[in-house]
Amino acid sequence: MSTPIPNILASRYASPELCALWSEGGRILLEREFWIAVLKAQHELGLDIPAEAIEAYEKVKHQIDTESIARREAQLRHDVKARIEEFCSLAGCEHIHQGLTSRDLTDNVEQYQILRSLQLVRLKYAALLLSLARRANQWKGEVVVGRTHHAPAQPTTLGKRLAMFGEEMLQAFGRLERLIDHYPLRGLKGAVGTALDQATLFDGDLDKVNTLQQNVLTHLGFKRQLNAVGQIYPRSLDFEVLSCLYQLGAGVSSLARTLRLMAGAELATEGFAQGQVGSSSMPHKMNTRTSERINGLQAVLGGYVHMAGALAGDQWFEGDVSCSVVRRVALPDAFFAFDGLVEAALHVLDDMGIFEVVIRAELARYLPFLATTTLLMEALRLGAGREQAHQAIKEHAVAVALQMREQGQACNDLARRLGADPRFPLATEEIERILQPGQDFIGLAIAQAETFVAQVEEVGRRYPAASQVRKSRLL
Amino acid sequence: MSTPIPNILASRYASPELCALWSEGGRILLEREFWIAVLKAQHELGLDIPAEAIEAYEKVKHQIDTESIARREAQLRHDVKARIEEFCSLAGCEHIHQGLTSRDLTDNVEQYQILRSLQLVRLKYAALLLSLARRANQWKGEVVVGRTHHAPAQPTTLGKRLAMFGEEMLQAFGRLERLIDHYPLRGLKGAVGTALDQATLFDGDLDKVNTLQQNVLTHLGFKRQLNAVGQIYPRSLDFEVLSCLYQLGAGVSSLARTLRLMAGAELATEGFAQGQVGSSSMPHKMNTRTSERINGLQAVLGGYVHMAGALAGDQWFEGDVSCSVVRRVALPDAFFAFDGLVEAALHVLDDMGIFEVVIRAELARYLPFLATTTLLMEALRLGAGREQAHQAIKEHAVAVALQMREQGQACNDLARRLGADPRFPLATEEIERILQPGQDFIGLAIAQAETFVAQVEEVGRRYPAASQVRKSRLL
Amino acid sequence: MSTPIPNILASRYASPELCALWSEGGRILLEREFWIAVLKAQHELGLDIPAEAIEAYEKVKHQIDTESIARREAQLRHDVKARIEEFCSLAGCEHIHQGLTSRDLTDNVEQYQILRSLQLVRLKYAALLLSLARRANQWKGEVVVGRTHHAPAQPTTLGKRLAMFGEEMLQAFGRLERLIDHYPLRGLKGAVGTALDQATLFDGDLDKVNTLQQNVLTHLGFKRQLNAVGQIYPRSLDFEVLSCLYQLGAGVSSLARTLRLMAGAELATEGFAQGQVGSSSMPHKMNTRTSERINGLQAVLGGYVHMAGALAGDQWFEGDVSCSVVRRVALPDAFFAFDGLVEAALHVLDDMGIFEVVIRAELARYLPFLATTTLLMEALRLGAGREQAHQAIKEHAVAVALQMREQGQACNDLARRLGADPRFPLATEEIERILQPGQDFIGLAIAQAETFVAQVEEVGRRYPAASQVRKSRLL
Amino acid sequence: MSTPIPNILASRYASPELCALWSEGGRILLEREFWIAVLKAQHELGLDIPAEAIEAYEKVKHQIDTESIARREAQLRHDVKARIEEFCSLAGCEHIHQGLTSRDLTDNVEQYQILRSLQLVRLKYAALLLSLARRANQWKGEVVVGRTHHAPAQPTTLGKRLAMFGEEMLQAFGRLERLIDHYPLRGLKGAVGTALDQATLFDGDLDKVNTLQQNVLTHLGFKRQLNAVGQIYPRSLDFEVLSCLYQLGAGVSSLARTLRLMAGAELATEGFAQGQVGSSSMPHKMNTRTSERINGLQAVLGGYVHMAGALAGDQWFEGDVSCSVVRRVALPDAFFAFDGLVEAALHVLDDMGIFEVVIRAELARYLPFLATTTLLMEALRLGAGREQAHQAIKEHAVAVALQMREQGQACNDLARRLGADPRFPLATEEIERILQPGQDFIGLAIAQAETFVAQVEEVGRRYPAASQVRKSRLL
Repeated sequence: MSTPIPNILASRYASPELCALWSEGGRILLEREFWIAVLKAQHELGLDIPAEAIEAYEKVKHQIDTESIARREAQLRHDVKARIEEFCSLAGCEHIHQGLTSRDLTDNVEQYQILRSLQLVRLKYAALLLSLARRANQWKGEVVVGRTHHAPAQPTTLGKRLAMFGEEMLQAFGRLERLIDHYPLRGLKGAVGTALDQATLFDGDLDKVNTLQQNVLTHLGFKRQLNAVGQIYPRSLDFEVLSCLYQLGAGVSSLARTLRLMAGAELATEGFAQGQVGSSSMPHKMNTRTSERINGLQAVLGGYVHMAGALAGDQWFEGDVSCSVVRRVALPDAFFAFDGLVEAALHVLDDMGIFEVVIRAELARYLPFLATTTLLMEALRLGAGREQAHQAIKEHAVAVALQMREQGQACNDLARRLGADPRFPLATEEIERILQPGQDFIGLAIAQAETFVAQVEEVGRRYPAASQVRKSRLL
Repeated sequence: MSTPIPNILASRYASPELCALWSEGGRILLEREFWIAVLKAQHELGLDIPAEAIEAYEKVKHQIDTESIARREAQLRHDVKARIEEFCSLAGCEHIHQGLTSRDLTDNVEQYQILRSLQLVRLKYAALLLSLARRANQWKGEVVVGRTHHAPAQPTTLGKRLAMFGEEMLQAFGRLERLIDHYPLRGLKGAVGTALDQATLFDGDLDKVNTLQQNVLTHLGFKRQLNAVGQIYPRSLDFEVLSCLYQLGAGVSSLARTLRLMAGAELATEGFAQGQVGSSSMPHKMNTRTSERINGLQAVLGGYVHMAGALAGDQWFEGDVSCSVVRRVALPDAFFAFDGLVEAALHVLDDMGIFEVVIRAELARYLPFLATTTLLMEALRLGAGREQAHQAIKEHAVAVALQMREQGQACNDLARRLGADPRFPLATEEIERILQPGQDFIGLAIAQAETFVAQVEEVGRRYPAASQVRKSRLL
Repeated sequence: MSTPIPNILASRYASPELCALWSEGGRILLEREFWIAVLKAQHELGLDIPAEAIEAYEKVKHQIDTESIARREAQLRHDVKARIEEFCSLAGCEHIHQGLTSRDLTDNVEQYQILRSLQLVRLKYAALLLSLARRANQWKGEVVVGRTHHAPAQPTTLGKRLAMFGEEMLQAFGRLERLIDHYPLRGLKGAVGTALDQATLFDGDLDKVNTLQQNVLTHLGFKRQLNAVGQIYPRSLDFEVLSCLYQLGAGVSSLARTLRLMAGAELATEGFAQGQVGSSSMPHKMNTRTSERINGLQAVLGGYVHMAGALAGDQWFEGDVSCSVVRRVALPDAFFAFDGLVEAALHVLDDMGIFEVVIRAELARYLPFLATTTLLMEALRLGAGREQAHQAIKEHAVAVALQMREQGQACNDLARRLGADPRFPLATEEIERILQPGQDFIGLAIAQAETFVAQVEEVGRRYPAASQVRKSRLL
Repeated sequence: MSTPIPNILASRYASPELCALWSEGGRILLEREFWIAVLKAQHELGLDIPAEAIEAYEKVKHQIDTESIARREAQLRHDVKARIEEFCSLAGCEHIHQGLTSRDLTDNVEQYQILRSLQLVRLKYAALLLSLARRANQWKGEVVVGRTHHAPAQPTTLGKRLAMFGEEMLQAFGRLERLIDHYPLRGLKGAVGTALDQATLFDGDLDKVNTLQQNVLTHLGFKRQLNAVGQIYPRSLDFEVLSCLYQLGAGVSSLARTLRLMAGAELATEGFAQGQVGSSSMPHKMNTRTSERINGLQAVLGGYVHMAGALAGDQWFEGDVSCSVVRRVALPDAFFAFDGLVEAALHVLDDMGIFEVVIRAELARYLPFLATTTLLMEALRLGAGREQAHQAIKEHAVAVALQMREQGQACNDLARRLGADPRFPLATEEIERILQPGQDFIGLAIAQAETFVAQVEEVGRRYPAASQVRKSRLL
């Protein structure tokens, strides 16, 4: 095969911004930013590094020529050395990588990629919440049949339903924010984590070594650092990151699954975007392909959580136990998959529609069933015996349900039957009055949707750039 | 089968305290506490519930007679009703469970079990950190061969190594603390999450409904509540909890794995507790069975994370999609497994020992190798050419290594060889002086161990009861 | 805790037969059968073991007094020794366990438990297939709307749909049969797998050692044995077994999921068994709780596959790396979960019902859409241009679909519209004739159902006892 | 990003042969082979397809111009149509894809990719077994310390140890062979699996439809086909395939892990290949990077098993539930990962070496311990009391072990101590004679290694091409 096989998650699902952080070029840029951060910190602590050199590196950091690097690597047979030489040759000086081991570079840069990816994810997820809140607000009063165990249970509103999935997303978003705030950098800790080489560089001045660590941290935008590490940072941090992505995906995935269920009942559609109209031979078929993709990507994410989980707790001594290939696969691919999931969800929320006529018809079919608890309470207020009233409701409700399912009775006549039953104190007209369309059976639904919208507005204020997020083209 | 099959994780590994939270009796107690919390909140909001009734329930809440409940259930064919009647019969009044659905009871009580379990776990993990910090402090200056890729790399100290695993544990502990602080209660939200029945109970006064939710929260010790839910709380919260336990287990598991590696090289032992002395026919065999158990329990935990992950993102409409049996298994069993892991680790840390003679011998064998970066730096200071000096080190180091492995040479004579090489500017005696035993090659190791100890002391101050935690008997 | 926490999977879901194999008593019985098998083999090979001794052991093997064993263990502090002494004391002689290590006993007995469990599972799964085939046969001509992507696609029959899930089950069943046929016993291989102690017992006569292995195999009903093992049998065999159970569960789980979908659309029900009628306050609610349980148990199984997977590939040297606790949990619990899944499915298949009126109504709503490929072909036969005819179908189909969803049009009038379109060569009546109810659009559906039934009949002939399997009481 | 992100598993680890099956070009070729197979079958059954047309397609099937296809797709906005037109344009006729849906193409071609990949995997795994058998044979008499629980237990031989991992591999290989033999093709079953469109094509002649299915099968090299399917083949087949790869990886992975353990103790090395010599600053460090990679790839595989497992049992109605993206990732990537694992193992087995001096030294240190069961038996033959003799052994063995570990005693003097103990009937010289180096304590080890070698030779005879497999370049 001459042409390389592309990373399918990156090429089909993830956004260019996210891919940029994990592409070869993107990684080289972050690596150079890391080297410069170290240079600055070493410079500030008195190592013999001229300010002009730092400027020189800064100036050329965006000149990324992967082919030139590849040529150097072929000659040197060492990837890190090749990238050092390329960068130095561009800058015209040789100051970077002093006192660093390869892992000091790679582990920290990978954490930098992770942090930057998490920050990007946070912004996009905030955008997704904004998008969802718009829909929740739009449909906060749209009464629908609430279902549990997939069976009609009580009314709710569509906006509340969306807010329900949004609530799960908000919980996960809170975890993401805390994760970013507490995500610690390994730092320049050397071959076994004792920072021996940096200590030697500073003639054993451990205070300077500590200050160096702190300054690098600040330059890169981390808020915390690890103290006692080995050659590597603890791999359970990767598990923490990926399991957080999985949790972030859960609410979205449940929303997508419910939308697939609603679409199958013709209550809603994820939209009529090009390519959504089934096969050419079945034009009526409006498949929820993008929602299915969301569910699929969640399953994919689960696989990467599994991989990261296999590393957590498997460290031997000071480190590096067969984790390279696992992280090389699981870290970028998990972010690609998650980004693809968010992209897909942005499209679904923009394009989705509802079929109000079908929603009304479903409600009409079930409403008397959904209101039985209220009918019972009314009956008790009028002095009916609890057992007797309940028994009447039960008998008639089951009878009506079977009549509709087995005999095809179109209309739910529970009101008529109950009204005619002497055990039940309300007359049919009274029952029908109670059952009038309205929002009488939706409890806090609208208020809950509004509270959700307000919570998301608060998120929007924390991340003003979220409103500028644009979704990518959907393949 | 006449005798029921016991839960093996509960009966062999978990502590009585943890089991108590998930036993039938323990659950009934938490359930009664929940009912009382609701009663109090309803009472405060003006529902017709006499203060004496609440007292009556309080007084009998510990009278748990599971057989009596079973008899009631056999008659009523409804588990929740049976427990309501039993409690009411004991208290002599009928006020509990007003406006509640079964899920209002079960989901909230399960969250209460989870919160209480997390709090217990937090305390025990703090105790484990204290235990580890004692060892890290004890051995902070004990120089050992640091290994990466399982090969000798640079020296470190045993205390620093323990602190390294402790660092991973501290990160996870921080996540646990934040999880507990933010863990939200579902509350009394009714059949589809709109709190319709509570709203009816308070004649549509939504403010009262909200206050009720808030008060129940406070009574149970939760700090946050969910706003928009369905019949259930979002199942990704279970995934969050279990993935947190898994993360907490990672550092412990890596420590156990490394101890197994050290024991196999006779550097350390997990102790000589009864039953630890291999089979009767191999008395010399000191198996690290408890450390193995830790690793095994981490694998078990992974399975429960998998189960919880299967529920996250699989919600249909307002809820309850095939999650009952999964949570019934995964929630208690994950806590049992994790508690067993902590118990085992407490034993290992108490009982472990090191073999200093073997540690010294290993260090002597490798020290010249471990110091090559320092030797190179010294050579450069004396004006040696970098390439030449490095080449000399490389040739001799590889030659000595092969001589020892292939010819059985007992003594590492790198100093002698290097000193005799004209390319290298230091004489053998100078090299040997540099290689004198001491802590010259351990960089920040001791300081890192001390920082860890200080961090754990801070944890100890936050959780003073941690120092009172007693480990259970090890089976 | 005074009362032990029961294994919830065993006590609520699994059948007594399966539990018996993994209960303490059941395990002791299998252990004794194993000892007797070894005795017989050693006897046949000339070791000094009187035939009467074997008889004596045979006679008392069912006398299992776990309390007496517990008393012995408390005294001896060794579980295997306690069980040896108990058995010998009952038999009145001391011949068992010669040349065996503890693992020779435990690993082989666990394999014996696994084999017996697999054989039981095979029988019950055959019974499940028989049950499914009865339904597939009953409904082989019951035309239903076939759905892909949850959207109506083409007609099929309900019997064919069941056969489709049955096909997946048959594939898995084939794997199970092959697994049982090839499942190899570790045998008496001693401490590190070299059979040193048996070799010593037979004075170094390796032929006798091999014959011994072979004979034990035959006595226990295994067909194959392992040659080169360590202290343990390869743990990937456990993964093979558990992943096979998971695969066996897949078809059942997809069937359950589809039944839940059908029930939500009132097309079918899993039955009206006691306790199935929703909460007391919502009598109309017929939840598919048993189907949900099936899906839940499949998720649970996935967790045990994860645990077994964590052991596969993690062996250190000759064995036993932290696998004890994992296998102690995963092996029995996976079988309990799977058995519970099969039990639940047996109930669902017995009790399920369909609502033909609703099925017909759904078919009427969609049939014209489902037949568009056939209509197109007919148009082409009459000389219509492909592009033009296809365009006409597409326009009208989408228009009708939207009319029904957005305007509430009750009747699918695609035939009328197409017939009136000059681009389409068939008149409305001709189209309506094509769309007459019948089985014209179901292709091979009936034949496929019949083939499935025939395949299951063949299974039934291989396992005649399958027709005698009785399902347990459903909790 | 201008340059696409490559699939890291394909580009760094998998072999070109395997990549070819999953590359875009490779897939197009298999797709064309599938179309031709259908054409031939339709031709044989009398459809109006000229033999020349088939020849025309055959002739151009290797002319794969992905850019031309991309241009067509951009115009047509339909990927399958674009590939149909390209192929037809090259062949100069239009006969392919008659009566097929897109899924008829894609699902079958993917199964064809899977079958071809499995066949390739089978061949390479056979080569790996051959490679392992050579080493097992070479070292079948090389006595080493056998370890269980990572502690010295009894002697074994290195060849036997390799055979032990080989035994696990053979079991998995048997499963692979059976999987390939039974792997069934979905066939041309149409939109919902009823083969409606093929039936229409053959005017309802169901026999012809069945024959068509059978012939396509034969052309593609499948031995079995599915009868009752939906739009898709059962997704648990993907789980079966991937879980089989995982099982195949287990023995290799345990071997790699044990080699890492041996290398850390300087007993063995995975070789001195370029790049294996640690960092440039630690030239003595011979990291087992390739063995670590094997373990890492096994963890990666586990993630794909997880993904496939998420699809098994999640089918809705006739199919296609969010599985596209999951399979697009998990299927190729799992094969890439597994192929990379086999490649790595081929390198390790070719390059590995042992350090006999270190092996002997370890054996000398532990041998008296390892022979205690034999010493006890000898003592009993001489009439010693069992309890007394055992007590003597136990006391002295533990004392010697502690003396060596705590006091640094170099020599294992158990023979001297035991010989001097009046409770033990053998004199020191007699004990030392028993402990003479030799193969006296290795039981069946050599025979087991030989049996393994013979079993692999049989595999080699079944797959003669296996001996021609060449490993790829290791990155």
